[in-house]
Amino acid sequence: MSLNVATAFAPASVGNVGVGFDILGHSIEGAGDTVTVRRTNTNDIRVIAIRGTLTELPLETENNTAARALRAMREDLNLDYGYDIEIEKGIALGSGMGGSAASATAAVVAANALLETPLPREALYRYALEGEAAASGSYHGDNVGPQLLGGLVLATQDSIIAIPTPDNLYCALVHPHFVLETRKAREALAGHYALKEFVGQSESLALLLTGCFKSDFSLIGRGLNDVLIEPRRSPLIPGFAKVKQAALGHGALGASISGAGPSIFAWCVSQEIAATTAKHMQHAFLEVGLQSDIFISKVTGPRAEVLSCSA
Amino acid sequence: MSLNVATAFAPASVGNVGVGFDILGHSIEGAGDTVTVRRTNTNDIRVIAIRGTLTELPLETENNTAARALRAMREDLNLDYGYDIEIEKGIALGSGMGGSAASATAAVVAANALLETPLPREALYRYALEGEAAASGSYHGDNVGPQLLGGLVLATQDSIIAIPTPDNLYCALVHPHFVLETRKAREALAGHYALKEFVGQSESLALLLTGCFKSDFSLIGRGLNDVLIEPRRSPLIPGFAKVKQAALGHGALGASISGAGPSIFAWCVSQEIAATTAKHMQHAFLEVGLQSDIFISKVTGPRAEVLSCSA
Repeated sequence: MSLNVATAFAPASVGNVGVGFDILGHSIEGAGDTVTVRRTNTNDIRVIAIRGTLTELPLETENNTAARALRAMREDLNLDYGYDIEIEKGIALGSGMGGSAASATAAVVAANALLETPLPREALYRYALEGEAAASGSYHGDNVGPQLLGGLVLATQDSIIAIPTPDNLYCALVHPHFVLETRKAREALAGHYALKEFVGQSESLALLLTGCFKSDFSLIGRGLNDVLIEPRRSPLIPGFAKVKQAALGHGALGASISGAGPSIFAWCVSQEIAATTAKHMQHAFLEVGLQSDIFISKVTGPRAEVLSCSA
Repeated sequence: MSLNVATAFAPASVGNVGVGFDILGHSIEGAGDTVTVRRTNTNDIRVIAIRGTLTELPLETENNTAARALRAMREDLNLDYGYDIEIEKGIALGSGMGGSAASATAAVVAANALLETPLPREALYRYALEGEAAASGSYHGDNVGPQLLGGLVLATQDSIIAIPTPDNLYCALVHPHFVLETRKAREALAGHYALKEFVGQSESLALLLTGCFKSDFSLIGRGLNDVLIEPRRSPLIPGFAKVKQAALGHGALGASISGAGPSIFAWCVSQEIAATTAKHMQHAFLEVGLQSDIFISKVTGPRAEVLSCSA
């Protein structure tokens, strides 16, 4: 029996993790996109429905992340069938939680289940990366990487590598109800950089990775110190300094911008501290008039999974 | 019996390791500086002799790396005695092998042995860092860090952390007989940097660290790809492209500039490959008219050690 329909779920993710701009991210539980793909006897890749938290997404293959990912997969594998795609958005637009990436990841994971011999997750990376580029305009795997593998992932131009993290390391992610246009977030990074900024950020990145490999919370905390991107982007997020201070003041190891923002993440040494931290961060956002949603997750978050398959 | 005289040896080191500018370095065996310190009943720190590969070094406390390191140590610990210092240089000037740092490291390790309660290596870091700044004009521990701890070390502004490396990872270091002024090497780095350069270099650094922690030679090789510093400094080293190609063409995982140059290092998966690689690198230097010295060492090189102590 050949399979014709598959549904997959891809989790939200924290891109950049502050100090790993474009190359480091981790998945989180509690939010994600669900995509159903159905084989068709055509050469077309069609988005036939978008439901959920937002529905005003592009439908054209070129501009829809799920469709563009499947086009890349179809062309690379010389598949002789097309796809109809249904997308159930669970991640808010412009939240910095990897929503564009999640639709692409869920689509390729679902389509992979329909292959006679499904590919390993690493092989799906470039398709998901191509899909995500439909929204971001560039190739960076700090969201699709962790969505494919789960947990914290180093995503280079051509590969994804899992980075171990302590089991009791938790993320408090707070998403304010405020849309930060990716274009503006990108513009904030324009211009030149000094070598000393780079050295400072390298130090942070190296401390974070070393702390993860050694399960050393102190090193991890010292590593969560973004001196390159955060100073440029944080002025775009109302209340950023207060929210970060609320996190650091209530036991978080560190806090910074999730993806391009405006969501802010904090890493904590237990679920309890993460929950307390998140509430204080939420309160700080309220002080500048912003409602927000809270997500608490292990940093070793889930990976995308196939929910169902049928003929 | 209180100890009054101690002699210590500090090994040469490969600063930067290409992709860890100012923050990553490893020690090597086969070359180093030896420093003897003697307690005096004065408040002075005097360099009374410099012997070895070079003798034309500054003698004033402010400008001599060993003396300035001991001054920092003396002031911080409120010691009521001074030091006479003798330096036996084993590392060539301006070679990119951490010579300035080695004198500072050997001095503090020797002086530490004379303390009633010697300090742990990590506590000596800031003294050695202060000493090394006498030569470099800035604070970066990518040489004194590995000299103090041995092996590959992440050296941040205020701490040094050992990074594990595979036991059979070897370094071929080739030092051409050509002095590259540190001033020129620094000028080559002036100007602005683009964010995309930073992302590329971060990727390399993250791959290198991940490869070391996972003992994965493939990741290490991919990580040894300096896209930030090497393009700017390599034009100052005659034959650089040929020497690097000689290394890569004979099995090295990667190769780049040691410290500020002109020495070039290559990492290899065995002692045999390192030896072969070094000979081919040496030959490539000869083609541009430069004689050179070869050093073969485990990347997990030695740390500074006290050679003798007496009353």
